[in-house]
Amino acid sequence: MSNEIIGVPTPAIDNYLLLTGSARYLDDIRMEGELVGKLLYSAYPRAIITRLEVEAARKTTGVVAVLTHEDIPGENSYLYHTPDQPLLAIDRVNYLGDAIVAIAAENEEAARLALDAIKVKYEPLPGVFDPLESMKPDCPRILEDYDNVIPSVSHEIGDIEKGFGDADVIIENVYTTQWIEHAYLEPEGALAYIDHLGIMVVYASNQAPNRDRKQIARSLGIPENRVRVITPFVGGAFGAKDEIHVQIHAALLAQATGSPVKILRDREESILTHVKRHPVIVRHRLGARRDGLITAIQIEAIADTGPYENAGRFIMKFAGDIACGPYYVPNAKVDTYAVRTNNPIGGAMRAFGGPQVCLAYESQMDELAAELGLDPLEVRLKNAVKSGDMTPSGNIIREAAAVKTSLVEAARMIGWQELDNKEREPAPHLRRGWGLATDWFVIGMGRGQDNAGVIIEMAPDGSVVLRTGAVEMGQGVFTTLAAMAAENLGVTLDDVRVIRPDTEFTPDAGPSVASRQTFMSGNAVLKGSSVIRESLLETASEETGLPVEVLDLRNGQVYAEDEELSISIPELAAIATFKNRPMHADGFYAMEFPEETTEKGKFIAVGPSAFGTQIAQVLVDIETGEVVVEKIVAVQNVGKIINYGGALGQLIGGCVMGAGYALLEELIVNDGKTITDSLDSYLIPTIMDIPEIETKLLEIPEPFGPHGAVGIGEPSMMPTAPAIANAVSNAIGKRIKQIPLTPERVLAAIEGETE
Amino acid sequence: MSNEIIGVPTPAIDNYLLLTGSARYLDDIRMEGELVGKLLYSAYPRAIITRLEVEAARKTTGVVAVLTHEDIPGENSYLYHTPDQPLLAIDRVNYLGDAIVAIAAENEEAARLALDAIKVKYEPLPGVFDPLESMKPDCPRILEDYDNVIPSVSHEIGDIEKGFGDADVIIENVYTTQWIEHAYLEPEGALAYIDHLGIMVVYASNQAPNRDRKQIARSLGIPENRVRVITPFVGGAFGAKDEIHVQIHAALLAQATGSPVKILRDREESILTHVKRHPVIVRHRLGARRDGLITAIQIEAIADTGPYENAGRFIMKFAGDIACGPYYVPNAKVDTYAVRTNNPIGGAMRAFGGPQVCLAYESQMDELAAELGLDPLEVRLKNAVKSGDMTPSGNIIREAAAVKTSLVEAARMIGWQELDNKEREPAPHLRRGWGLATDWFVIGMGRGQDNAGVIIEMAPDGSVVLRTGAVEMGQGVFTTLAAMAAENLGVTLDDVRVIRPDTEFTPDAGPSVASRQTFMSGNAVLKGSSVIRESLLETASEETGLPVEVLDLRNGQVYAEDEELSISIPELAAIATFKNRPMHADGFYAMEFPEETTEKGKFIAVGPSAFGTQIAQVLVDIETGEVVVEKIVAVQNVGKIINYGGALGQLIGGCVMGAGYALLEELIVNDGKTITDSLDSYLIPTIMDIPEIETKLLEIPEPFGPHGAVGIGEPSMMPTAPAIANAVSNAIGKRIKQIPLTPERVLAAIEGETE
Repeated sequence: MSNEIIGVPTPAIDNYLLLTGSARYLDDIRMEGELVGKLLYSAYPRAIITRLEVEAARKTTGVVAVLTHEDIPGENSYLYHTPDQPLLAIDRVNYLGDAIVAIAAENEEAARLALDAIKVKYEPLPGVFDPLESMKPDCPRILEDYDNVIPSVSHEIGDIEKGFGDADVIIENVYTTQWIEHAYLEPEGALAYIDHLGIMVVYASNQAPNRDRKQIARSLGIPENRVRVITPFVGGAFGAKDEIHVQIHAALLAQATGSPVKILRDREESILTHVKRHPVIVRHRLGARRDGLITAIQIEAIADTGPYENAGRFIMKFAGDIACGPYYVPNAKVDTYAVRTNNPIGGAMRAFGGPQVCLAYESQMDELAAELGLDPLEVRLKNAVKSGDMTPSGNIIREAAAVKTSLVEAARMIGWQELDNKEREPAPHLRRGWGLATDWFVIGMGRGQDNAGVIIEMAPDGSVVLRTGAVEMGQGVFTTLAAMAAENLGVTLDDVRVIRPDTEFTPDAGPSVASRQTFMSGNAVLKGSSVIRESLLETASEETGLPVEVLDLRNGQVYAEDEELSISIPELAAIATFKNRPMHADGFYAMEFPEETTEKGKFIAVGPSAFGTQIAQVLVDIETGEVVVEKIVAVQNVGKIINYGGALGQLIGGCVMGAGYALLEELIVNDGKTITDSLDSYLIPTIMDIPEIETKLLEIPEPFGPHGAVGIGEPSMMPTAPAIANAVSNAIGKRIKQIPLTPERVLAAIEGETE
Repeated sequence: MSNEIIGVPTPAIDNYLLLTGSARYLDDIRMEGELVGKLLYSAYPRAIITRLEVEAARKTTGVVAVLTHEDIPGENSYLYHTPDQPLLAIDRVNYLGDAIVAIAAENEEAARLALDAIKVKYEPLPGVFDPLESMKPDCPRILEDYDNVIPSVSHEIGDIEKGFGDADVIIENVYTTQWIEHAYLEPEGALAYIDHLGIMVVYASNQAPNRDRKQIARSLGIPENRVRVITPFVGGAFGAKDEIHVQIHAALLAQATGSPVKILRDREESILTHVKRHPVIVRHRLGARRDGLITAIQIEAIADTGPYENAGRFIMKFAGDIACGPYYVPNAKVDTYAVRTNNPIGGAMRAFGGPQVCLAYESQMDELAAELGLDPLEVRLKNAVKSGDMTPSGNIIREAAAVKTSLVEAARMIGWQELDNKEREPAPHLRRGWGLATDWFVIGMGRGQDNAGVIIEMAPDGSVVLRTGAVEMGQGVFTTLAAMAAENLGVTLDDVRVIRPDTEFTPDAGPSVASRQTFMSGNAVLKGSSVIRESLLETASEETGLPVEVLDLRNGQVYAEDEELSISIPELAAIATFKNRPMHADGFYAMEFPEETTEKGKFIAVGPSAFGTQIAQVLVDIETGEVVVEKIVAVQNVGKIINYGGALGQLIGGCVMGAGYALLEELIVNDGKTITDSLDSYLIPTIMDIPEIETKLLEIPEPFGPHGAVGIGEPSMMPTAPAIANAVSNAIGKRIKQIPLTPERVLAAIEGETE
């Protein structure tokens, strides 16, 4: 392998299309006779529907279809996992985002008039808006058929009583995180139509085209192979487009009308109805010896998941699995719950429950250090998990060297040992502080369905087509996969064209979530391209008379060790094609969970782990409570850099998103109603809020990774908020246990008013 | 294998689309802003272009582009094999179909006005219109850089002198066949445009989408992976759409204009410019013993291939390979030539040179029988090739039982032994006769590039998508491939959806020619679907605890031996998907040419052989010369019936086409100019010309065939014309050595005026 493509900085392969405006996002796709689809949402967070009158809407000029739950030929439910959420409400509504009626009309105005013409009579019910309230045994069920509490994990390892008994200090705190909004540039949307062959085609801004296909088929009552889901360019997703949003509604309306129907949510609708990051209450109890060594941790994490399960169960499972962070804890007990309320729905968002627990465990590490008068870096290094250590879920971590390496490297970059020499009070009203945080993230979807296919073909002129179901949503996966294919096939990045997801033609790559596509589709690309590589090398061997072992493919030429031979890849491709060698292949990879043997016995390993450390330097105005992040040092292990720009972009983007999480972003939800319903009232970081970010990508290989690579998309944002929180604490000498660290909360802490 | 799909009569899977008009042929695809593309063809069959003025055409209102050879960015040639034919003439024209200028205009009228506005000054040269003339050493070259004679094969086996020396009788005759027209419903056409990603997309009525892609890229000067060729429904092809026609011209115009450009040939243009079946002169010398055993055959076959090679070299190679027919000939010499003239171009047509030589060898067998006073059936049975026999090309035939079986079966069906009892003179002016003919056809493209890929996927609900590059042009290949997939996967035919060829997504299946797709893509389907079958069976084994060996999949259920278990294929598909078993695969098959050992040594086998026999019963009006075919008995071995209706359709269609070849069809070409330039003057059989056809499909398995199957598309039409010719000879007692057997020729024969 020496084609010098892997890891070499390069523009993303679709930059040209993006920069020239040739990239088509959902709303750029316009069909002749396209109808406008709209949904009527509930007026109450909890109510019985006593009457639903849609006749007037049906008679509105320009209205083509008005659908209620009675008009759904297949299953009336979403199906991320538990089918508890109706597509169109039957006789109850459980949050303000519940859709009741779907309308298709010739234009926007007719659709709005029709929505207004619908009469819904409600009998409002008292809502449950506090998950702790909802958990009480006497709290009535939110949904008739389901318990309010969705247990996610209950891990216990070692002897928790003994662990706390051995502790010299016990640190116990409750940390609280907020609802936040994905705030992608492109809100949810879908365009559905029936093609001339009778196939239901759905263009959707999504992350899981094959899961979309399955759900659409299920609700339309048709076979999956008669549904085609195409993912155009996606203007951001961050997890919220993993689960289906309006795809099924658009398809139902297209099925009912026979016309193309597009549903595009506007910003307000998107904020009010779609999934959000779960607010989580984390009760964290940590026992340690005087020297800082952890003896026990007990965690209870409770997420407000809204009325429906969506990804809540799995998010809190993942949160539970990684709740102790990258530290070895001999005695641990972890219980996590997603709890139903009548608030907005919690769903997948970048790092999937990780940022919430990371805030807790990293705050606790600093609290422990403060309590014992130790260096936070030393406390972390002392407890850092090692390869072969057991996690609270009873599995082992395969490769953990990056925990310590990232800690040491980040400390070196910021000059951790010399911080005492730095100016901590640049002005009487300003306090400077530094905070450290480390993350542990597990790539992939765990031990259930987790596989990826890719189809790769080399044309007789040596040019390459790579068909992937992986969704490019700005993270750079197309460039990553193309680079791996080009490297393996000895061609340039320009020689590889990536075909976007289209279930008609691209194999299922699984959802583009869990930071898994570099790992999963990357491995699939290696498998597929290796079939073609072998064809080329065998042909080259026949043509040159040299053994395959000494031959290599790079820069469009064949090499024998370091000597460039006179045969080019295009020539070789033509000959190999003529000689009937396979020049296309379906590369398929399924996640492996090997058994590993430690001194304690045989264990199954967790998935590929990603580790990193960030250090934040903040300046706090103790008069106004304002926090300015001056600098972030971010070190993250990627195993092997494949797409340099993409990886760096993810790391920097993670820091920015993490800073917004720490300081700015908060959906205010009052009695189930989101008040911050625009990007005026809901603040995300702007270019002016972005500090200096110093980055370092580590390359400690993951044994099963393609070229040793692991994902970086999600872990990159986990340590930012706790690093900032720790830095603020370091600056003002007070711990704030709730994010965002608004000026009000900072001032309150300074004034000693926090709990 | 017992899903009871293979071989069971069923409607073709795309019947619904065809019958409801939902099937889209090329001209049904309309793009916004589509321009009309047209070509200016030569006014002379041979001339020097002394001046070409296109400025007036460029200035014509509504004209968007006018291209000459100077405007082609890549290679200015077709490339079936030898790049001797320019896309746009440079300074010479060599037949009336040579294109000189390509025009794109806003409408038909503007395009025609622009064509009229082009001034071409020619210096006419004397044309060569007779291949025998062209072969003479002193005949000037048709093309400056190429010999007039394209040698195809020169086979010699045994000792030809000795063979003829051993003969008691020698039969020597010259047989002549005519130019014929493919006469498909849909003439050639293509629609090209550049999509929003900058990809050149070409919809084409074609048979070889991947070869089209290669040639388009080559002439446009862009990589193959930036060209996408899509084959919509095709209204017949019969070989003429194997080689590219107007695809490159349309793409050049789209590249030049940036707009979609459609070129659609009308019937006259199609007849005048595109490839035809080669007229061939076959000199056939046969020596045999008194008992009918052949001792030697010498054959020289000369095809008029027009000025350019196109498929001529390979057609005459194939004709040479099979020129002795399904008979064992110990001493043979075969020489075949494609010869350049200034006539229309010869190209691929159903059976690729086979019908021409079959007319000769089957006429000769009857002549031999007549000379020796033997039964034509007995003479054939005595000489019939056996498995392991050597062919004139020095290879051996693997499986030849069908020669004798088909002869015996056809004879049984017509009542061959009782024909003497039938009425031979139903009226004083009528004579009835019977004629026998046998065929040998070799499936596939020989020992060069011959492979096929298919991608197959089972969705989690058990429905199946099959992506093939094989072209459905009415022959039924989609139904055939779907049946094999359904059988292997235990689902119904309705569960399988076949995706049409689109080089963006479907793997190269090779061209849909040479009766190869049932065999090649069929084998690819078996390979691909077996990956999924294995996933299903292994999952079923895990679920039921039964070993894989006793499990089977059929009718949508899992069976343990003959007991239906309670687990369905859809359930199994969902579990297998969840368990990360591969549920999609790229099935790839390359033609095998195994070494076979006979008593004479080791030999390479020829490709899979197809054999069949037809017997025609004719009634000749000796006053008018009119021949009426009363009945055809057609027996053809297909190895295994996969798609019953499709196979039967091919057999019946072959008989009809063969009857047209024997009696009606003939392009009259005078000094390079085709006179019969419409379907008024060029006669093809109508429903009124179709006799009773009694069919029988044999199932003698081909060892390498999928389920034992071989193709039937082409062999089915080979014996018809010689059977009819032999029947006419049997009826009137005279041999006519030239087809079609027009009333004039029949009368001349009766009146003793044939040569």
